[in-house]
Amino acid sequence: MVYKALVPFPVVIYKNLFIQEHRAESGMWVSVLNGRGHTVPSVLDLKVDHFGFTADETFKQRYLIADEHWKKNGGSILFYTGNEGDITWFCNNTGFMWDVADQLKAMLVFAEHRYYGESLPFGNKSFKDSRHLNFLTSEQALADFAVLIKHLKRTIPGAKNQPVIAVGGSYGGMLAAWFRMKYPHMVVGALAASAPIWHFGNLVPCGVFMEIVTKDFKRSGPNCSETIRSSWDAINRFARTGAGLRWLSEALGLCTALTNTEDVQRLKAWISETWINLAMVDYPYESDFLQPLPAWPIKVVCQYLKNPSVSDAQLLQNIFQALNVYYNYSGQASCLNISETTTSSLGTQGWSYQACTEMVMPFCTNGIDDMFEPHLWNLGEFSDDCFKQWGVRPRPAWIITMYGGKNISSHTNIIFSNGELDPWSGGGVTKDITDTLVAITIPEGAHHLDLRARNAFDPTTVLLARSLEVRHMKQWIRDFYASLRKKH
Amino acid sequence: MVYKALVPFPVVIYKNLFIQEHRAESGMWVSVLNGRGHTVPSVLDLKVDHFGFTADETFKQRYLIADEHWKKNGGSILFYTGNEGDITWFCNNTGFMWDVADQLKAMLVFAEHRYYGESLPFGNKSFKDSRHLNFLTSEQALADFAVLIKHLKRTIPGAKNQPVIAVGGSYGGMLAAWFRMKYPHMVVGALAASAPIWHFGNLVPCGVFMEIVTKDFKRSGPNCSETIRSSWDAINRFARTGAGLRWLSEALGLCTALTNTEDVQRLKAWISETWINLAMVDYPYESDFLQPLPAWPIKVVCQYLKNPSVSDAQLLQNIFQALNVYYNYSGQASCLNISETTTSSLGTQGWSYQACTEMVMPFCTNGIDDMFEPHLWNLGEFSDDCFKQWGVRPRPAWIITMYGGKNISSHTNIIFSNGELDPWSGGGVTKDITDTLVAITIPEGAHHLDLRARNAFDPTTVLLARSLEVRHMKQWIRDFYASLRKKH
Repeated sequence: MVYKALVPFPVVIYKNLFIQEHRAESGMWVSVLNGRGHTVPSVLDLKVDHFGFTADETFKQRYLIADEHWKKNGGSILFYTGNEGDITWFCNNTGFMWDVADQLKAMLVFAEHRYYGESLPFGNKSFKDSRHLNFLTSEQALADFAVLIKHLKRTIPGAKNQPVIAVGGSYGGMLAAWFRMKYPHMVVGALAASAPIWHFGNLVPCGVFMEIVTKDFKRSGPNCSETIRSSWDAINRFARTGAGLRWLSEALGLCTALTNTEDVQRLKAWISETWINLAMVDYPYESDFLQPLPAWPIKVVCQYLKNPSVSDAQLLQNIFQALNVYYNYSGQASCLNISETTTSSLGTQGWSYQACTEMVMPFCTNGIDDMFEPHLWNLGEFSDDCFKQWGVRPRPAWIITMYGGKNISSHTNIIFSNGELDPWSGGGVTKDITDTLVAITIPEGAHHLDLRARNAFDPTTVLLARSLEVRHMKQWIRDFYASLRKKH
Repeated sequence: MVYKALVPFPVVIYKNLFIQEHRAESGMWVSVLNGRGHTVPSVLDLKVDHFGFTADETFKQRYLIADEHWKKNGGSILFYTGNEGDITWFCNNTGFMWDVADQLKAMLVFAEHRYYGESLPFGNKSFKDSRHLNFLTSEQALADFAVLIKHLKRTIPGAKNQPVIAVGGSYGGMLAAWFRMKYPHMVVGALAASAPIWHFGNLVPCGVFMEIVTKDFKRSGPNCSETIRSSWDAINRFARTGAGLRWLSEALGLCTALTNTEDVQRLKAWISETWINLAMVDYPYESDFLQPLPAWPIKVVCQYLKNPSVSDAQLLQNIFQALNVYYNYSGQASCLNISETTTSSLGTQGWSYQACTEMVMPFCTNGIDDMFEPHLWNLGEFSDDCFKQWGVRPRPAWIITMYGGKNISSHTNIIFSNGELDPWSGGGVTKDITDTLVAITIPEGAHHLDLRARNAFDPTTVLLARSLEVRHMKQWIRDFYASLRKKH
């Protein structure tokens, strides 16, 4: 279940949402990728282990470069700190970077995170066992980024004396923030969009995530969250008998019939995850995720969920309609598959391992402040599951020891942006920490809306957020060049 | 040879130089250690690998605590970031911390570096092969320190809301500075004494170290450095014949006779290292290293080295007299052993491995700007030697990628202190970088003189340096408590 973080961090990626046609330009760094601007995919040999010397193996890290708007004179480098998925997806779904490249005279670089996409340290053996997975950590990924930036500055004429800004969303946003914290000599600042850097340990209440999901449904239609809250018991009542299970399987149009209690647990987890995903992608315009979605999809969903007091059968038929908004907006699906919720471009295996080691995010529900069945956060059980699945045990305190938890005020030049609709904002930085560690909140924003390409239906608040972000970035760039001039 | 960094980083440690008698106090953290104040040795279980999850082994890190002057109300914690040796040595030879504990109301903590002293991750197998040595890195050591500080704050009543200051000398000074850079949430500042953080890559010329050694001899007596410069050829001329080798072995009072060219190379390396060690410990008062030494030992040495133009035989007899100042001040030695130069409390194996992996410090001589035989820095040869010895190859660029090289101005609250007599000052920070990254130089100071206990013969410049250091530390402590009050 998502809220146990045993499934991938659900970074939502829209494909082909906003494809700009860029004119092909000559130059060594130009080629065409996926119709989204002109990027050149490249690879760099990196140490599999930056922190040990026994193993001296290297692997090829993939990265993409676009230099259409880059100016050697007074320009900058926007560096996307890739997260748990194929980097071409992030490249194609971080329209913000493409939109601001011109005014920042920026080269765009998208660095793939090790163990995702094509950047596999041990090829198809990378996920074989915990020994092969041993080098999948945020620290190794940050070191990869540092080595890549050094490589780019050394090999691209004109790049050497340019300011680099880290940009990332979701887990990539955490990496952007952490990169600035740990390698401030590499980047002059970081834009960390929807980065729940405090969703660890006891830094925030474990229920905050699901409370925000619930709020999103509450505000999107009368009785919407109450109807969902009622649905769990309705399912449970049907699940008591074989006939009930058959009815459920049919009424919900499942591809595979439910046959036992475990199936019912999986069904409820899958439905929960659907509501969560909807909360993350509650964007103000029609968009195309795994399946196409309408604008403000939760509003559409809630049109089917207006009455919690109908019969169980009626209630679940309404739930089916609601699920169809997410899974069958196009009308193409003949049945619903409860083992699928998100895109295959996300590295589900990799993220599951990361959640079982460093990225231990506690989730819980109580059924009162949220619309879900009550579920405590149980570290012991979580740890046992991890050990069974990966042969490793989580170290839940480590990320806080490493990256400082809430005690980060000595750092500078990080923008933490969060959409208030985004459940991940509960673990994010939503208040300024200092003058240069600033929080930007977007009331009508879902998961890193600000990183998405501009759209005619963008709410004013995201336009404002983006212009603030650019203002900060321009300031960092100015400061960089001012201090460079002082040196010479 | 020292200047190839294949022998341990020669941190010079004086034993029993300044033993204060502290009154035993009651309380859980008090016991007596080595007659030097009251410290309690403790151990903490730490992960052998902080950066990977396959191996879940732990080991026991040793640390020492002294709380005689500690005040729970408005106090502080001085945390010695242990370097390449037994922590009790550092504890007994960092009198500065003991001297300032009272005015800073400070608890003193001395943390042993993994793979040194008794903090051996794999017991007596720790140095068995590169696989066992794989976790000997500065990054792992810093992570150990971070976990230890968290542990102390959690377990010692009253420690939680107190500012911690990192203190270290030599490699320990680098660690103190790097700890503040990488874990600013753990320490409010760092005193990095004689820390050559720039003695990597091309950050400083590779000849700077030996030039400073030479200057120390030049200023300590007429013709002193010239006499040493002449001695190499004198040795070479004798080394051409068997009779010459025999004469050399006898004239220099060697325990083992020289028999071939390799022996002669080792002899010259050993003599060079002696001059280097003298430059590091050229302290203004009588002191007791491996053997007792007089005050300003180079001046005493130079009394024997006034004439470079005498016969080869006379020259080398004078060199013998000079070597005797270092190796036989007490008159106890019956012969000189060219395989020994420093104390056994330093972890020679560990440092040799570190120098072959991360801590790659280039050294070179040209015989013109220094008094040594010309020797280029040859990374390829060095790498091959490392591979032969440890099965690993150095990554000379890594430390700069990791810790920023000269691009560290975004950090705060680090004091870099250097003695101008100390050859390591050539790779140190000797000019202010910003208002809070400050350099303190001590014209009459050798290797981290400021960290040593106060002495009646201390030159004024070191007293001044120490009082400046305390002023900065007090400011950091004040700032910490001010921001704590603001929070509540």
